[in-house]
Amino acid sequence: MGAVKTKRMPRAVREQQMLDAAVRIFGRRGYMAASMDEIAELAGVSKPLVYLYLNSKESLFTACIRREAEALVEAVRAGVRRELPADRQLWEGLDAFFTHTSRNPDGWAVLHLQARTHGEPFAAVVTAMREEIVVFVTQLIVDAAREAHRDPHLPGREVAGLAEALVGAAESLAAWANATPGTTARQAAATLMNFAWAGLGDLMDGRPWSPPEPDQDAQDRGQTGGSAETSPTR
Amino acid sequence: MGAVKTKRMPRAVREQQMLDAAVRIFGRRGYMAASMDEIAELAGVSKPLVYLYLNSKESLFTACIRREAEALVEAVRAGVRRELPADRQLWEGLDAFFTHTSRNPDGWAVLHLQARTHGEPFAAVVTAMREEIVVFVTQLIVDAAREAHRDPHLPGREVAGLAEALVGAAESLAAWANATPGTTARQAAATLMNFAWAGLGDLMDGRPWSPPEPDQDAQDRGQTGGSAETSPTR
Repeated sequence: MGAVKTKRMPRAVREQQMLDAAVRIFGRRGYMAASMDEIAELAGVSKPLVYLYLNSKESLFTACIRREAEALVEAVRAGVRRELPADRQLWEGLDAFFTHTSRNPDGWAVLHLQARTHGEPFAAVVTAMREEIVVFVTQLIVDAAREAHRDPHLPGREVAGLAEALVGAAESLAAWANATPGTTARQAAATLMNFAWAGLGDLMDGRPWSPPEPDQDAQDRGQTGGSAETSPTR
Repeated sequence: MGAVKTKRMPRAVREQQMLDAAVRIFGRRGYMAASMDEIAELAGVSKPLVYLYLNSKESLFTACIRREAEALVEAVRAGVRRELPADRQLWEGLDAFFTHTSRNPDGWAVLHLQARTHGEPFAAVVTAMREEIVVFVTQLIVDAAREAHRDPHLPGREVAGLAEALVGAAESLAAWANATPGTTARQAAATLMNFAWAGLGDLMDGRPWSPPEPDQDAQDRGQTGGSAETSPTR
């Protein structure tokens, strides 16, 4: 930071640095208040170079939204082993989602708050990402119903509605978790897993969903032992 | 519509007509594309009168958001009989919410999409309304835990998270239901009630939450008989 460096660096690398800085400033200051001066300074480049590479504040913001949206979808996809039982898949997906949003609070603020608050063109990028996640969750619920080995009495409309409800719940909870000091990603994931899988009725009756034991989880992952670090905090 | 009427009418009545027209136009066209000409025409008044009463497009939009937010919170509060068991209260709250949002799709579009998409001052009004609903739902979950007559193992943080998740799920599902032709408010409410109360696990096991029988419901309401019209569609 501070002094503008002129060291030679591949364009792609420098562009990522600009995006890193922009996500941080947009996420913390908000789109309107964010200044291109501050972004350039944080990225360690000159302001004209930011404009040369990213064109305008609008297109820099759009590039941030795209990058953060892709990273989030990729994190959720990569976190789920599709060969596991449905409840384990859901747990892994939620865990991956909340881990990603808690590690990238500025990116999540850009997607969940900023991108939806400053006009339809920005919001449209987030809507497209959301659609991808809804399709993924819908498939997961369909798999779960198939796994239950019976006519699941879940018509297509109901499955679509459940997926929308689950995605909305996750978005809302992620924003709350990031704004609530001391809330870990594991806690948020466990809260939503219990809510989504066991339901409030079972929770009240003291019948929560139970996460896998660390040993079992490690075994599933083909590791040689369980680590306390990877066990969900309940 | 069409001819501008000059008939004498109390200011409060005329202002409500302007707001009715504005909610409709803002909800359907979006804030940016909405024209004050069209709003005045739909309200049956002159454009200068709209400016005289509501000052500017911004303050007209803010007045719409406030009115729709208050109406929604009031509809949910009025729909829930707090003396019922917790699951019935939740069912009534969801039913009231989805009935209101489906009957006022333009108002819901203003709150859920438009108000959050056009800058922080507008979004702040919606955030305040949302807070009220989250507090209401939090209390409902606390009551449910107390009702379960046991140490409910639900710390305050968990209850707050569950309330956030439930509100986020409802918002998401309402937007989806209004955008999906043929989805009734009762269907949306029943989908979310099952999800929230019974959970996906119970749904897959064929153990959904069951709504009250129409006769029982009518009896609870102090009516003399059940009407098929008031029974939830499943």
